[in-house]
Amino acid sequence: MKLTNLNDLFLHELKDIYHAEKQITKALPAMIKAASSEQLKTAFQDHLEMTERQIDRLERVFELLGQKVSGEKCMAMEGIIKECESMMKEKADADVMDAALIGCAQRVEHYEIAAYGTVCTYAKQLGLNDALDLLHTTLEEEKQTDMLLTSLAESTINVRAR
Amino acid sequence: MKLTNLNDLFLHELKDIYHAEKQITKALPAMIKAASSEQLKTAFQDHLEMTERQIDRLERVFELLGQKVSGEKCMAMEGIIKECESMMKEKADADVMDAALIGCAQRVEHYEIAAYGTVCTYAKQLGLNDALDLLHTTLEEEKQTDMLLTSLAESTINVRAR
Repeated sequence: MKLTNLNDLFLHELKDIYHAEKQITKALPAMIKAASSEQLKTAFQDHLEMTERQIDRLERVFELLGQKVSGEKCMAMEGIIKECESMMKEKADADVMDAALIGCAQRVEHYEIAAYGTVCTYAKQLGLNDALDLLHTTLEEEKQTDMLLTSLAESTINVRAR
Repeated sequence: MKLTNLNDLFLHELKDIYHAEKQITKALPAMIKAASSEQLKTAFQDHLEMTERQIDRLERVFELLGQKVSGEKCMAMEGIIKECESMMKEKADADVMDAALIGCAQRVEHYEIAAYGTVCTYAKQLGLNDALDLLHTTLEEEKQTDMLLTSLAESTINVRAR
């Protein structure tokens, strides 16, 4: 199907993000298991639950647009998760692995910040305010998760890894 | 080689970013070609030149650490670029493709913001101030590029795509 306007592109991007989020829910359990720090395990567990709510929000956006819920293979998130899996296979001291896992998770977060930032701009420019509200809520959550991970790294995890 | 401390992880991450940057220099020419807007072509061209300077900076960081310059396959950037290539193969009106290319480029930028943000934190915590200066300069450039792309999308490109 040809992408003839911003509406088409908006839908295309939503499908990409939907697939990305689904991949994240499958990747997080292994990251929770690989983490040693209880704080980090909890942060990943909380993010898994948050991701489920973000998927619900995306489903509501599809509904608002009168479109069926569907994903389109997100090769970028596939690559980010592959890199994360490869990191988890490295031989590393537990504290160093925790620091590495934060690096992986922040790459995931920043992909989402870029992707949600993009669809928020589209929704705004298309005057789709209800969709914008939902997407913007998630964008803010992703930014907060990224900041939480930075603070965890700086205050505790990286210090232990040093 | 086992990752036993933050120094090991720092080097590991630098190799990942080095490979990511190299991939970006290979991907940008196709994006310049795929763009229709002269402003966007120029932005991508400028970023290509900036990326070359960022690679030089990374090489200086390896030198400061007394390590040979080397990359380690960055599967995440590979995925992000694959997604971008797949987008360029979509049938799309020229204005819509321009908007889509900005979305792709911002995913690249955000990967770099996450990756450079991570190594800046490591360099700071390891007291490697000369390396930190170099990496921080690049981090700021990536953030500025991301903001430039947002502004280009909001002011011109997405408006035409609508």
